Amino acid sequence: MADSPLNEDLVRERLVIISSRKPLIHHITNFVVMNETANLTLCMGALPVMAHAREEVEEMTSQSGALVINMGTPYPDLEEAMVAAGKAANRNGVPVVLDPVGAGATSYRTRIAKRLVEEVNFAAIRGNAAEMAVLAGVEAEIRGVESISTGGDVAETARKLASDLGCVAAVTGEVDTISDGERILKVRNGHPLLGTVTGTGCMATTAIAAFLASGEPFLEATAAALALFGLAGERAAAASGDKPGTFHVELYNALYALCREKDIAGLKVEETR
Amino acid sequence: MADSPLNEDLVRERLVIISSRKPLIHHITNFVVMNETANLTLCMGALPVMAHAREEVEEMTSQSGALVINMGTPYPDLEEAMVAAGKAANRNGVPVVLDPVGAGATSYRTRIAKRLVEEVNFAAIRGNAAEMAVLAGVEAEIRGVESISTGGDVAETARKLASDLGCVAAVTGEVDTISDGERILKVRNGHPLLGTVTGTGCMATTAIAAFLASGEPFLEATAAALALFGLAGERAAAASGDKPGTFHVELYNALYALCREKDIAGLKVEETR
Amino acid sequence: MADSPLNEDLVRERLVIISSRKPLIHHITNFVVMNETANLTLCMGALPVMAHAREEVEEMTSQSGALVINMGTPYPDLEEAMVAAGKAANRNGVPVVLDPVGAGATSYRTRIAKRLVEEVNFAAIRGNAAEMAVLAGVEAEIRGVESISTGGDVAETARKLASDLGCVAAVTGEVDTISDGERILKVRNGHPLLGTVTGTGCMATTAIAAFLASGEPFLEATAAALALFGLAGERAAAASGDKPGTFHVELYNALYALCREKDIAGLKVEETR
Repeated sequence: MADSPLNEDLVRERLVIISSRKPLIHHITNFVVMNETANLTLCMGALPVMAHAREEVEEMTSQSGALVINMGTPYPDLEEAMVAAGKAANRNGVPVVLDPVGAGATSYRTRIAKRLVEEVNFAAIRGNAAEMAVLAGVEAEIRGVESISTGGDVAETARKLASDLGCVAAVTGEVDTISDGERILKVRNGHPLLGTVTGTGCMATTAIAAFLASGEPFLEATAAALALFGLAGERAAAASGDKPGTFHVELYNALYALCREKDIAGLKVEETR
Repeated sequence: MADSPLNEDLVRERLVIISSRKPLIHHITNFVVMNETANLTLCMGALPVMAHAREEVEEMTSQSGALVINMGTPYPDLEEAMVAAGKAANRNGVPVVLDPVGAGATSYRTRIAKRLVEEVNFAAIRGNAAEMAVLAGVEAEIRGVESISTGGDVAETARKLASDLGCVAAVTGEVDTISDGERILKVRNGHPLLGTVTGTGCMATTAIAAFLASGEPFLEATAAALALFGLAGERAAAASGDKPGTFHVELYNALYALCREKDIAGLKVEETR
Repeated sequence: MADSPLNEDLVRERLVIISSRKPLIHHITNFVVMNETANLTLCMGALPVMAHAREEVEEMTSQSGALVINMGTPYPDLEEAMVAAGKAANRNGVPVVLDPVGAGATSYRTRIAKRLVEEVNFAAIRGNAAEMAVLAGVEAEIRGVESISTGGDVAETARKLASDLGCVAAVTGEVDTISDGERILKVRNGHPLLGTVTGTGCMATTAIAAFLASGEPFLEATAAALALFGLAGERAAAASGDKPGTFHVELYNALYALCREKDIAGLKVEETR
């Protein structure tokens, strides 16, 4: 285990870039967490926009600092909009992050996830162990959108997926495992209460998008986003007790404060091997 | 008036079943309360999934512990998905609960509600007095999705609907009236602040779904859900003062705590006649 | 600068009308803020309903006290529903308010906004400086749904738009500028934290709708809504510190309390010229 590959100054620098450039974060996302991910984007100093009509997604994406493709409530028109927006992002050099919500839960979602990684070049993909295993072609069990078990080694899944697709792969859970196909980073920030609020995975994906908009290297950007979001979860838990409603509110408070702090303390990122 | 037909030990037993099995609660629901009902499901220890594409609803439902069909923001594709999922649930023995939001407010909603009860066998139906009267063929007045008046006797509406459809019918309001076609239970838990937050009716329906997933008898399951949810409302009101924003937050806190308590005190369920 | 054209007694009178009549506020709105605007409607004592199927919007609108058309997440079916509902509102004397979210951000949204003002007679239109400039045919810059700059004079934009369309035009920002084509009112209520929560513009539009349902003159109704909503923002900020999650919760608390106060103090409305 090496020293931390991500010091707090680097994260701080990226946050200053985000809040000064105010990049547009274009979301094509599920209907459950639209409000939540928009508010998260604002907390980070970036500007959210939700737009999913095939008629406008390419134009919206081309003005954006990053694009989120989150397939949490898929339907045919949304699938086409995702593919079109993803390709437009690729043409315009806009980084794209995929959240393959529920891949493996139904054959429909699995097919969409596989089509997306085939037709769009992603800068990063974030999912739980089962979703990422399904994309990597490893056996896994998923119940709805929750990972129940994954047979393979998580680090190996992340490395394989990243290597196969030429992107950053982030498998999130109690510990987050992030790879660019060669290096493996582990993020140990987070809190169990994040599991009591729906869409915290989707929020983490939005945080990644905001960091991708601050520039390469995307491995660092992804780890920074997950560590910062996990740290916000820790602080929110400390402020709320074992109360999921209060925790949900405090999560925005904590992330907003963290993004404005001169000295961020408490990020837990390690490089393994 | 008989003794309480629902003691706290029975409710506790069902909560333990829910939190240990973590049943998937598949929602085909309106776009207003998706986040709220997902969070409510998590508070109860079950797993929410929102999926409404015709292409995947049958597969998702067949893995679920219960299915919620909530017609709060209907449109043609959603109607077809609801019917298909309901039939798949019936084939697979998955209990289904209907929330006929706004039945009676437009002829479109009334038609959908009537089609649903004709083509799908529901384990339970929960609505306000006007919605349930419309389904039972009794005269009623509804403004949007709020019951304004209902001519008939609520207990008779519940009993008739339950008897006609072979399900549990729950007419909720200041007092909740629940019937399986023979017995009539009254739940006196609840608080006026529940009316200041949108979707608390939809949340009650989700609570019923989680309890249906803990097994028969469904009359008991439905009463347990409504009493527990109403009690959470009472506790949230006590914690928040006359403040609907705070009440909304405390509602999750209260339900989460209640679902983890060894001794639940304060359920008010009576059997009449 | 004249005396305040809007005293607190007038606002109070309208609030009493709203809470006693409980008008239905029909929303055809974006999927990001459905829950938020429904809760705002309830805080004001009115009844929200979200309905966007072409099959039912005319029937729903005809029963309503006001109609909100908010184009924040447009797609073809929604566009048709908006036009049909708007025309039905016009036929039935139901006042309609337009929120042209993101007009100018994509040619698709600009086209829809222009079609709406051509085919529907609006009682009021509320947007940020860029959106309103686009509708008025003035040059402007918009990033997603956030106004970045607007070349023209805001008061002139409001007056021109109101005069051209025969409606009330409200350009909201740090100061809100409202015109009926002749008079210009300025509202100085509000707080920067409103910019940290998504959809506060959409909420302001919903507040306008509730006030429109209390009757003419609509210039006064619009100013009352924006002043009251801005004042709620000030009080919420005072109650929450620099915390956007808490502010979001306190915003409902503050508006709910304001709508029930005997004496509302702190509205800042001026007439200019």
